[in-house]
Amino acid sequence: MQAEIVSIGTELLLGEIDDTNATYLCRQLTGIGFDVERRQTVDDNRGRIVQVLQEARRRSDLIIITGGLGPTPDDLTREALAQVTGRPLHTDGAAEQRLQAFFAARGITPTANNLKQCQVPRGGQLLYNSCGTAPGILLEHEDCIFIALPGPPPEMHQMMSNDVLPYLEDKVKEAEGQILYTRTLHLCDIGESSAAELLADILDNEGNPAVALYASPGQVRVRMSTKAGSQSAASRRLNRAEQDIRQRLGAHVYGVDDETMEMAVGNALLAAGATLTVAESCTGGLIASRITDVSGSSRYFLNGYVTYSNESKKRLLGVSEGILEDYGAVSEECGRAMAEGARQDSGADYAVAVTGIAGPTGATSDKPVGLVYIAVADEQGTVCEEHNWPGTRQQFKQRVAQMALNMVRKRVMGLV
Amino acid sequence: MQAEIVSIGTELLLGEIDDTNATYLCRQLTGIGFDVERRQTVDDNRGRIVQVLQEARRRSDLIIITGGLGPTPDDLTREALAQVTGRPLHTDGAAEQRLQAFFAARGITPTANNLKQCQVPRGGQLLYNSCGTAPGILLEHEDCIFIALPGPPPEMHQMMSNDVLPYLEDKVKEAEGQILYTRTLHLCDIGESSAAELLADILDNEGNPAVALYASPGQVRVRMSTKAGSQSAASRRLNRAEQDIRQRLGAHVYGVDDETMEMAVGNALLAAGATLTVAESCTGGLIASRITDVSGSSRYFLNGYVTYSNESKKRLLGVSEGILEDYGAVSEECGRAMAEGARQDSGADYAVAVTGIAGPTGATSDKPVGLVYIAVADEQGTVCEEHNWPGTRQQFKQRVAQMALNMVRKRVMGLV
Repeated sequence: MQAEIVSIGTELLLGEIDDTNATYLCRQLTGIGFDVERRQTVDDNRGRIVQVLQEARRRSDLIIITGGLGPTPDDLTREALAQVTGRPLHTDGAAEQRLQAFFAARGITPTANNLKQCQVPRGGQLLYNSCGTAPGILLEHEDCIFIALPGPPPEMHQMMSNDVLPYLEDKVKEAEGQILYTRTLHLCDIGESSAAELLADILDNEGNPAVALYASPGQVRVRMSTKAGSQSAASRRLNRAEQDIRQRLGAHVYGVDDETMEMAVGNALLAAGATLTVAESCTGGLIASRITDVSGSSRYFLNGYVTYSNESKKRLLGVSEGILEDYGAVSEECGRAMAEGARQDSGADYAVAVTGIAGPTGATSDKPVGLVYIAVADEQGTVCEEHNWPGTRQQFKQRVAQMALNMVRKRVMGLV
Repeated sequence: MQAEIVSIGTELLLGEIDDTNATYLCRQLTGIGFDVERRQTVDDNRGRIVQVLQEARRRSDLIIITGGLGPTPDDLTREALAQVTGRPLHTDGAAEQRLQAFFAARGITPTANNLKQCQVPRGGQLLYNSCGTAPGILLEHEDCIFIALPGPPPEMHQMMSNDVLPYLEDKVKEAEGQILYTRTLHLCDIGESSAAELLADILDNEGNPAVALYASPGQVRVRMSTKAGSQSAASRRLNRAEQDIRQRLGAHVYGVDDETMEMAVGNALLAAGATLTVAESCTGGLIASRITDVSGSSRYFLNGYVTYSNESKKRLLGVSEGILEDYGAVSEECGRAMAEGARQDSGADYAVAVTGIAGPTGATSDKPVGLVYIAVADEQGTVCEEHNWPGTRQQFKQRVAQMALNMVRKRVMGLV
C-alpha cells in the first residue's frame, strides 16, 4: 500500500526545527509494509495545504499529516481536510466535554479557538491525545485514509503507538494477508562499492528476503526485508540471509538494527569480562563520549585521557621525550606509547589511543591533514594502523572514533 | 524569489536519517530573503525525481536538490536533471582529472560509476567538493536555477558556504536591489518566556531591523533582520539593535551567528591568555570533544580527564577516599575536588568538572537521574552549581556540557 507524509508548518520551512516527525513516521510505516515514495512539507497556508493533499490523494492509499491542529488561526489542517474531502466540520461532543474539563481544572475558560480543536470532518473520528489538547483525526474517504496528528513529537508518538499503528497493521494484513519484517546489518571499514561486490549476486537477485545496500557518511548498511504472515516465518528467512551475508562480510558486520558501534564494543567487552581505557589526542574526547553514551558503560569503561598537549602525553601517559623529539606527536611510535601508557596507568585490559592531524591547520610537509595513527594495546601486545582521511575537522574526528572503536571490537573478539 | 527544496534518497523515506539538510537549506535561503513555501522528499526513482522537479519548476525560481550524486546506480540526480532540462550529460575534464588524482593517491582505480560523478548537463557547471568525491551541479535553465548538492552534510555545507550562497546573494540583489541581512544572537541559561519579557517592546514593535525570538530544545536565539542595499547600511542597523539587546540580556548572550559555545569559550580564553582543563564524569568526554571541535584549541586546551570510575577520580584527580565515602561521587564536594585536582595536576588556569547521574539507571533514593554538579576552579577559588535536568541520556549530556562551557565562559570573562 502507498503512503505519503505531509508535514505542515511555516517553522519547518524557516529551518527552525528538524522534521523528526517525518523520519519517525517513515520508519513506522515502512516497518509495517507501507511504501513511502514521497514526503511533502508545506507552510501554514490553506490553499497550499489543500493543493498538496489533493496531489497526494491521487497517488496514495494513506496520507498522514502532522501539524496544524493547534488552537491558533495559523492551524489549518482541519479546514483543509474538510475542503479536500467535501465533508463539513462539526463539533465532537465528547471531545468538547473533555476539553472543557481540561480547562476547568486549570481555572481557565477556553476560547473559540480552543474549541475549534474538537471539530472533525463528517464521517471522521477524533483520536485521543493523552499528553496535549489537540486530538488527532482519522478519516476514511473514498479509497484514501487521511490521518492528521499533532506536531509536538511526544503527542504524535503516543497517538501512533496507541491508536494509529494497530489500526494500520490491521489494514495492511486485511489488504495483503502479511506484513513486512526488516533487519539491518551495520558495516564498518568497508566501502559501499566493495560491499556491493561481495554481495553482488544477492543484491542483483530479486530474492526473499530482499537485500539492499545503503550508505551514509562513514556508514554502510545492509537491509534485509521480507513479507510474512508471522514473525517466526520472517525470522527464519532473515536468519538465513543474515548468515549468508555475515559469511561474505565477516568482521565488517559490527551491529544489527539499533546496535551502534559503541554498543557493539560494550557487548564485546562484557562478553570478555574485560575493561577499557582511551587515550585521545586528535579526537579530543569523542571516543570516550561515544563509549559513555551507552547506559551501563561504567561496567567496562574505567577512564579516558584527553592528552592534547605534548606535556600531558608525557605526564599522564608516560610518552618519552625521545619519541616526541625523534618522531613527533603524530607518529606510530607515539600512538603505541600512548596506548601502552594508558593501559599501564589505568590497569584496563584494553587501551586504544589515537593521534593525528584533524586540521584545517597543523599540517607539516611530511604530515598532512587527515593523517592519523590508531593503536590498541592489550596483554598480547600493541597493534597500530596508519590512515589518511582528509575532510572537515568533524568528519575526521567521527571517522577516527568509529575506526578506533572498531579496532577495539575486533581485538576483543579475537578477529585481528 | 521563490525557492523549493527537493531531498532525494530512499534512506530518508525509510526513516533511517533525519533530513537535517532540508532544515539547514531552509534557514540559509530564508536568511538571504528567499521564500520557501514547499519542500519535497522523493526516493531514488528516476521517474519520480523527474516528476517532482517538473512540478517544482513550475512554481519556483530556485530549486535546490540534495542527494543522489554518489557513485552508485541508485544515484540519479544528474540523469533526472538532464532529462528535466533536456540538456544531455557530458564529462567535465577538469573534474575527471581531480577524481583520477584522488583515487591514484589512494592506489585505487576508479570504476565507471565513480567517473559518472564528473558528468554535468550541458551549460551547467560543477561545484568543487573540498571534502568528498561528488561535485555539485549549478545549472541556469530558462527562468529557473537548479542547484544539486551532495547529501553528506559536511560536503553540502562547505559547498553552500564557498560557492552557492555568494552566487545566490548576487541573484537576489540583481532581482530586488537589496537583500536580507540577518544576525542571530545565541542565548544560554535563560528560557524563551523570560527572554521574551526582557525584549517585549522590541519584539512587538514592527521595527527595522525586525527582531524575533526562536526556541528549540535547550537553545534560545534572537534573530535580527533588515533589508538593505549594502552590507554597511545593514551593519549599522544591526549593530544598533544588537547593542540594545545585549544591554537587556547581558551575559545570557554567548555568541553571534555561527559562533558556538565552544568557540565563545575559546575566544574568551585567548583574550585572557589563559588555559583550560576539563574533568568529566557523567559527560564522559563530551565537553573536551566540543572544546576540541574548534580549530586552534590546542592554544588554550591542555588536556582532559574522563574519570568514570571512582578509582580514576582518586588516582588522576586526587579526590579523597573520604569525599567519595561521605558524600558520594555525585556531590558538590566531589565536583569541587575534581575541578581543583584537575587544575593542580594540569597546571591550567581554569578547570571545569562535572559529576552527575545521566541515567536511565544509577539513581538512588536521594540522588535522582538528572542531578549534576558543575564546578569551575581558578586562582580565585572554586564555584559550584547544582542542577537537575531529567531527560534522555543524550539530552542530559548535551545540556550539562553546554552549561559547563557557559560557566567557564562567564568565569573567564569576569561575569560571575
